[in-house]
Amino acid sequence: MTSPIDRIRRLTERAQLERRELDSVLDAGEHVASLSTVVDGLPWVVPMLYARVGDRILLHGSTGAGALRHVAAGSHAALCVTHLDGWVYAHTLFDSSANYRSAVVRGVLTRLSGDEAAQALTRLSDRVFPGRSGEVPPHSPKQLAATQTLALDIIEGQWTVKVHNEQPREPDEGDDVATDLWTGVVPIRTVYGTPQTADRVAANVPVSDSVRSYVEAKQ
Amino acid sequence: MTSPIDRIRRLTERAQLERRELDSVLDAGEHVASLSTVVDGLPWVVPMLYARVGDRILLHGSTGAGALRHVAAGSHAALCVTHLDGWVYAHTLFDSSANYRSAVVRGVLTRLSGDEAAQALTRLSDRVFPGRSGEVPPHSPKQLAATQTLALDIIEGQWTVKVHNEQPREPDEGDDVATDLWTGVVPIRTVYGTPQTADRVAANVPVSDSVRSYVEAKQ
Repeated sequence: MTSPIDRIRRLTERAQLERRELDSVLDAGEHVASLSTVVDGLPWVVPMLYARVGDRILLHGSTGAGALRHVAAGSHAALCVTHLDGWVYAHTLFDSSANYRSAVVRGVLTRLSGDEAAQALTRLSDRVFPGRSGEVPPHSPKQLAATQTLALDIIEGQWTVKVHNEQPREPDEGDDVATDLWTGVVPIRTVYGTPQTADRVAANVPVSDSVRSYVEAKQ
Repeated sequence: MTSPIDRIRRLTERAQLERRELDSVLDAGEHVASLSTVVDGLPWVVPMLYARVGDRILLHGSTGAGALRHVAAGSHAALCVTHLDGWVYAHTLFDSSANYRSAVVRGVLTRLSGDEAAQALTRLSDRVFPGRSGEVPPHSPKQLAATQTLALDIIEGQWTVKVHNEQPREPDEGDDVATDLWTGVVPIRTVYGTPQTADRVAANVPVSDSVRSYVEAKQ
């Protein structure tokens, strides 16, 4: 027989496992999400760069009339991240599908300011451009003033994570499937190409270390 | 001097150009979108496969308690598609950014039925799994009954398209930039890997023609 304590422990373990899965989906890929909110009762959405740091998702945008004009502090928001991993070719179109990992985090956006905002911006950049913050100057006060930094806290019960990683479903007995019909999975991934040097840079300047190692890891 | 007729003609040409750009963004890539709606006044979002056919975006899901349970016919929705094309490494983190193409289409979902739904499902599959519908049986009545097919019409004034494809911004005069600092663009693309044959398929069955040519086009 299972004691209530065992049941609670199993639930807790499962919850921890799911949370690790959420973090791993949020931390994978290119850090591009869609950020949805409600404007005048209607759905509104914009693509955004983001980074997870601990129990928080960090976002940024211009303080002007940019992408964040409808999602200021206090807005209800839902962030959606999707990684497409493959096409699953089954014996029917109905059974064909995609392998993917996705995460949705819902909550209320809060605005960061002062040192907290500056640190958040550096951490966000460290996820999107790993190592680059060591190669360029720190954020200037003028740049910080022109940037809105928002946080979406990851709160229990306010997120979902889905991982679909499967083979095509086997045909049922009696299904009329040609024996020579190929079924299987086509893997899909994102790769980085050869860095293209800006016109202003002298030909003998090597690609920055941070860029070189990032591209090598994604080739 | 410009006549009002010239102005209208220019606006029309511009509108047509933008609409072609929208179509090209919607038709590119892997046909994965986020679909946002409003549930109990709060934003709600789910990743979806979609296809554009003419002035329509087609979506599908299970008639059961699946991804579409909150976005039945009559729901206001916003579909967001994003293609990440590159990282723009500038001389500051502030000026660094992403090259991307994105589209947002807003409207009200309508449900398709009968032959219209069956045709829509085949067209959707022809975008996601090009050529596959010629290799497997047509949708059965049972499969059609288990599938909800929705359409989101593309209506003037209800969509936006953005294409950001730039070099890093040049430093301003007087900016303190090391002459040996590399700046430039890292291109990003999606590639398909070697098809993985399902366990049930005999080793001598070749990869289906549709799959082979799709993968070749995306390698």
